[in-house]
Amino acid sequence: MTTAIATTARERMSRAREASRSIGLLGDGQKATALRAIADAIESAAVDIVEANREDLERGRESGLSGGLLDRLQLDSARVAALADAVRDVADLPDPVGRVLDERVLDNGIRLTKVSVPFGVIGSIYEARPNVTVDIAALALRSGNAVVLRGGTAAERTNGVLVATMRDALARLGIDPEAIQTVDEFGREGARDLMHARGLVDVLVPRGSAQLIETVVTESSVPVIETGAGVVHIVLDESAPLESARDIVVNAKVQRPSVCNAVETVLVHRAAADRLIAPVVDALQRQGVVVHGDAAVSARADGVVPATDDDWSLEHLSLDLSMRVVDDLDDALDHIRRYSTHHTESIITADAANGERFLAEVDSAVVMVNASTRFTDGGEFGFGAEVGISTQKLHARGPMGLSELTSSKWLARGTGQVRG
Amino acid sequence: MTTAIATTARERMSRAREASRSIGLLGDGQKATALRAIADAIESAAVDIVEANREDLERGRESGLSGGLLDRLQLDSARVAALADAVRDVADLPDPVGRVLDERVLDNGIRLTKVSVPFGVIGSIYEARPNVTVDIAALALRSGNAVVLRGGTAAERTNGVLVATMRDALARLGIDPEAIQTVDEFGREGARDLMHARGLVDVLVPRGSAQLIETVVTESSVPVIETGAGVVHIVLDESAPLESARDIVVNAKVQRPSVCNAVETVLVHRAAADRLIAPVVDALQRQGVVVHGDAAVSARADGVVPATDDDWSLEHLSLDLSMRVVDDLDDALDHIRRYSTHHTESIITADAANGERFLAEVDSAVVMVNASTRFTDGGEFGFGAEVGISTQKLHARGPMGLSELTSSKWLARGTGQVRG
Repeated sequence: MTTAIATTARERMSRAREASRSIGLLGDGQKATALRAIADAIESAAVDIVEANREDLERGRESGLSGGLLDRLQLDSARVAALADAVRDVADLPDPVGRVLDERVLDNGIRLTKVSVPFGVIGSIYEARPNVTVDIAALALRSGNAVVLRGGTAAERTNGVLVATMRDALARLGIDPEAIQTVDEFGREGARDLMHARGLVDVLVPRGSAQLIETVVTESSVPVIETGAGVVHIVLDESAPLESARDIVVNAKVQRPSVCNAVETVLVHRAAADRLIAPVVDALQRQGVVVHGDAAVSARADGVVPATDDDWSLEHLSLDLSMRVVDDLDDALDHIRRYSTHHTESIITADAANGERFLAEVDSAVVMVNASTRFTDGGEFGFGAEVGISTQKLHARGPMGLSELTSSKWLARGTGQVRG
Repeated sequence: MTTAIATTARERMSRAREASRSIGLLGDGQKATALRAIADAIESAAVDIVEANREDLERGRESGLSGGLLDRLQLDSARVAALADAVRDVADLPDPVGRVLDERVLDNGIRLTKVSVPFGVIGSIYEARPNVTVDIAALALRSGNAVVLRGGTAAERTNGVLVATMRDALARLGIDPEAIQTVDEFGREGARDLMHARGLVDVLVPRGSAQLIETVVTESSVPVIETGAGVVHIVLDESAPLESARDIVVNAKVQRPSVCNAVETVLVHRAAADRLIAPVVDALQRQGVVVHGDAAVSARADGVVPATDDDWSLEHLSLDLSMRVVDDLDDALDHIRRYSTHHTESIITADAANGERFLAEVDSAVVMVNASTRFTDGGEFGFGAEVGISTQKLHARGPMGLSELTSSKWLARGTGQVRG
């Protein structure tokens, strides 16, 4: 086991690759034990973590970070305890490695078995959220992977202490600590090396703003799992019951406005506009929501801000909501095709045929009938942990559980067969 | 349905995207009928296809294409008939769309169903093999996808006639012909547009030389499924029975040397070198194989060409084979880790523990015990068709069947549920 500190990002990634061999062969119990040890170590290091975080916060304030960013950056002792608990939850999940995915015996007697295996090395690029450092490392280890982290300069001190704490916990158990690496101190250069580390890093999971994800998807030659942006729509069909329409729209916007499965745009069928718009807008406004509407919406409700063209493609992530009247279901589907980020869309309808048409034709990770878009969530889906919500079509789509951090390989057991 | 010819590569891809909506909703029978009509149309157009091909061949000869490339490029009437038959075989395969992949009912009553859906638009970049034009288009349509093809300038005339023939066949059935597009006439610019068509093209499948695949993987911002290069190894363990060792190595090299699952390097355990090398090399040489060996191999067999360092990372794709003596299984695993392209590796052994260790530790798409590497093949695996052999870990690994040309989406059927 190499103990000298690696001095380049590539060298760190090489060590992660090397460590991934032994990590990938750990059993279920060993991985669970390692995660519980990491959770304990994080709790024990709470004072150091909070102190490092205070330095990051101070630097952030000096450099003019916004209040929202500073809040995401902050780790107090309660948040550190919550982090440790989240790691214990991951420890309790079933091992995603070694599942038999397919099995067949060929006519010539060769036994084929397709089994789930770790990717090897998972990279993650994210922004100013030190909890992601621990989250991703725990999910990677649970699925038998080594991990290379790039968490941005704003959280560099906090991430440094978290990574050191996790590595120490592994080393004390005799598990190769090189399985957890950070390239934070190499700045943009380190991020660039990570995006081009084909052969060393098997998959990259960016987490953060739409712009960060766009940069990683465009620049990376390592395969990327795109998670992210949600310009989420709810359609109120001609037959939508008022109560469902109102309750679901309010829940989807208000319950947690800052997340990707919150609704951003509501499309109201023209034939239901007189019946639904006033009470739905009223219910939203009572919860503090600013409704940005087109002329047909403004004509039917008070206090509506005129929507601009930009509103339709905007992920507000706040108590703002765009609302438009559409001519019919075709018009709604056209709007969604044009502006959706393929995350989640829902239709509220009493017409089963329209519901099934919506399910068939909308091209999004999760398509719903008569349910709040807030249910697009690994926890709600029963996955136990959420790696992110994939908005791409390759490998994983929608909420990703631990099994999406595995690949597969075919094992072929023969007795001397040759091909004729 | 637009009928004017699109004049830019982006415009063609937009039309493919638009057409993908109706193609994705076609039923099993409609897709099978469309493919049979395409097969018939290709047979009927045989004279035109062969004539266009003759022009490509002539241009190829003038520009000095090698004999091997000219052979791949050539389509005579027998090859055209075989192409049509291959399309009929694809028509007979089961529909990969609409399979239920997961199902769960949440405590709140929401019914979740994960179903397989078409990707939407599949792009393919390949070289001078007009059969791929028809192959990929047929596989894409069978799985409900539109397709954008870039087959290279060498086969441009042939591909042009093939694409026009397939589009006409669709149009006669009232299916949107814009589902099949070529960007060949836009040259390198068209290929570049295809690699950067995020939002229009969902996945790119390059087929061709290692260099072509490298270029696509490095440059593309559209997700890529990497198929490809096979520096394939066979390990002859200490206990390898002579007969199996000889038969499998000869079969894996000689049965079809030009393909990616043919063996390129044989690693012989030092303790078995005296027993195995002379008869295995002799059997290979009788089949015309040139063995490139290290000193330990040369010392035990006649007519061995000294191996150079380059041989270990070389995909010969010919009747050449690299052979080395290794100290033990660890040494063999080290060599494989260093030089393998993660396609297929096999061990010949009578020791079950060594076989299982090999299966567990080798990080390749297909890992074998006592079988010829030539079995890594969609047809042999019983998939009915082969889209390619993926050497990446995301989405698909190893031989890909039709189901690997689908993505998934979650359908959520509720009755008004909101999140608490």
